[in-house]
Amino acid sequence: VNRIGLIGVGLLGGSIGLAIRVRWPQATVIGWSRQPASLEAALERSAIHRAAKAAEEAMQDCDLVVVSTPVDSIPPHVRQATRMIAAGGWVTDVGSTKESIVRSLEDDPTSLQRFIGSHPLAGSDKQGVRFARPDLFAGRTTVITPTPQTPAELTQRAIDFWTAIGAKPVAMDAPSHDLAIAATSHMPHLVAAALASSLPPELLPLVASGWRDSTRIAAGDPQLWRQIFQHNAVATLRELDRFARVVSAFRESLSAGDFDRLQALLADAQAVRQSAD
Amino acid sequence: VNRIGLIGVGLLGGSIGLAIRVRWPQATVIGWSRQPASLEAALERSAIHRAAKAAEEAMQDCDLVVVSTPVDSIPPHVRQATRMIAAGGWVTDVGSTKESIVRSLEDDPTSLQRFIGSHPLAGSDKQGVRFARPDLFAGRTTVITPTPQTPAELTQRAIDFWTAIGAKPVAMDAPSHDLAIAATSHMPHLVAAALASSLPPELLPLVASGWRDSTRIAAGDPQLWRQIFQHNAVATLRELDRFARVVSAFRESLSAGDFDRLQALLADAQAVRQSAD
Repeated sequence: VNRIGLIGVGLLGGSIGLAIRVRWPQATVIGWSRQPASLEAALERSAIHRAAKAAEEAMQDCDLVVVSTPVDSIPPHVRQATRMIAAGGWVTDVGSTKESIVRSLEDDPTSLQRFIGSHPLAGSDKQGVRFARPDLFAGRTTVITPTPQTPAELTQRAIDFWTAIGAKPVAMDAPSHDLAIAATSHMPHLVAAALASSLPPELLPLVASGWRDSTRIAAGDPQLWRQIFQHNAVATLRELDRFARVVSAFRESLSAGDFDRLQALLADAQAVRQSAD
Repeated sequence: VNRIGLIGVGLLGGSIGLAIRVRWPQATVIGWSRQPASLEAALERSAIHRAAKAAEEAMQDCDLVVVSTPVDSIPPHVRQATRMIAAGGWVTDVGSTKESIVRSLEDDPTSLQRFIGSHPLAGSDKQGVRFARPDLFAGRTTVITPTPQTPAELTQRAIDFWTAIGAKPVAMDAPSHDLAIAATSHMPHLVAAALASSLPPELLPLVASGWRDSTRIAAGDPQLWRQIFQHNAVATLRELDRFARVVSAFRESLSAGDFDRLQALLADAQAVRQSAD
C-alpha cells in the first residue's frame, strides 16, 4: 500500500492512520473529515500526512480507502470511493452495524467487487482523534463481512491488512455479525444507559468503581449510537428480552427471599464473566 | 494507635493493614482469619505483623479492631471485640450493608459505646489479600454510620482514622446508607450479573471492552453478595423497579422506531455518566 485515504478521522480513523504510519512508514495517508477541527487535530496528531479539502481527494488513486464515519453516511462514501480508487485498490469501513451497509450496496457491482465491510471491536466511550493510538487494534477481534459476491482475493487482503496492524480478523456474514453484536455491544449499551439514567442524581457523590465500570459506555455519543440502534433495532430488542428474563429470575429470587437461588444465579454470572478474562 | 486487630484479612482488611503500616509504622497489627491460607498470605504480604490463632488474640487489648468479614458474621465479632479491646479502644467494620448490623447491636450498650459502622466505597471484583494495596482508600468516600447513641468523640475518631489513611469520610445514618447503596452498588451488581448471564455462550469470543466494563462486578464472590442482597433486599427491589421503568422507555422508543426519543434518552444517560467523572 502506497496511498491510503481515510474518510473520517476520529478515534477509529485516527488510530488506523497512526497504525498504518507505524506499519508502512513509506505510505502516504490522506485524511478527510466533515468537521474541519477533526481534520486539523488529525494532522497535529500525525494520524495523517495531508488533509483533503474534499472527500474525493482522499479517495482518488488510493490503494485503500477506510470509511470511519457514522453508520448512516458509510454507504454513499463507499459507493464514491470504489469508483475513484486506483486500479486494484479496495475499500473498507469500520461501522458497528453491517447488514444495512452491505444490503444498500447490493445493487452496485462496483462496490461488490471492491468493498468489504469491517468492524474492529475496539471502540471506546472516548471520541475523537485525541484518544487515537497506533495500538488500538492490538489483539482486538475485527469482524470482516464478505458476501457471496466478494472476491476471495479481497477477503484475503482485508485479513492481511487487519492482521498487519495487530488485529485478529474473523470472517462472518453481515446478518450474523449484527445478531451477535446486538448481544455483545448494542444491548449492553442500552442497559448501561438505563443504569446511568436511573440513578437518583443526589446519589452521584456515592458512586464507586462498580457503578462507574457498569455505566462507562453510556458516555458514548448519543447521535452515533442512535444510528447504530436504528440499524439493529430488531436484534437489540430480542436481546433485551433475553436480558429481561434473567433480570426477572433475579427479581423473583430477591422478592421470594430465596437466597439459595439468588446465590446460584450470581454463581452462573460469575462463571460467565470469569470465562471472558 | 499502638495495637490494631484485623478480623478478616482479605482485600479490605489486608489493605487496611498495609495502610496502617504506612501511616503508623510503630503500630503493631495483629490479624485473624477463619481461613488459615488467607492469614498466611496476609503475613507474606506484610499486611499484618502477627497471625492470631484465635479471633480473641486479635481483639485483646487492642486500641482499634476492624472487622472485615462477610456481613453475616460482623455483629458477633463486634460484640466480642467491644468487650476485649483496651480501655478507650474502639471497633469498626467495613460491611457493605449497615442497617442490619447496627440494629442487631442496638440491645448491647457496650457495642453502642465502642462501635461505629464504616463502609469504604473501595471494593473490587478481585478478592483476597493478594490484591490489597496501602492506597486502596486514597480519595475514596467512606460512609460512617453513627447512631443517636454513638458518642460524638467516637464519631470523630472514625473520621480521623479514615482521613489518616486517605479516605474521605461522610457520616449518615445506617438506613439512609443502605437505601443509597442499593442504588449505587447493589442494583448495579444485579444488573451486571444479569447482563453476564444473558450472553449466549457462543458469543463470548466477540465481547469487547464495553461488555467487559459493564459486567466486571459480576465476577464478585456469589457468597459475599448473597449476604449483601439478603440484608438489603427491599431497597434493591425498589431500585430495580426504577431501573426497569427506564429500560421500558428505551424499549418503547426502539420498538416504536422513535429514534429522536431514543437519542434524547441516550443524551440524558450520557449527561449523568459524564457528571460522575
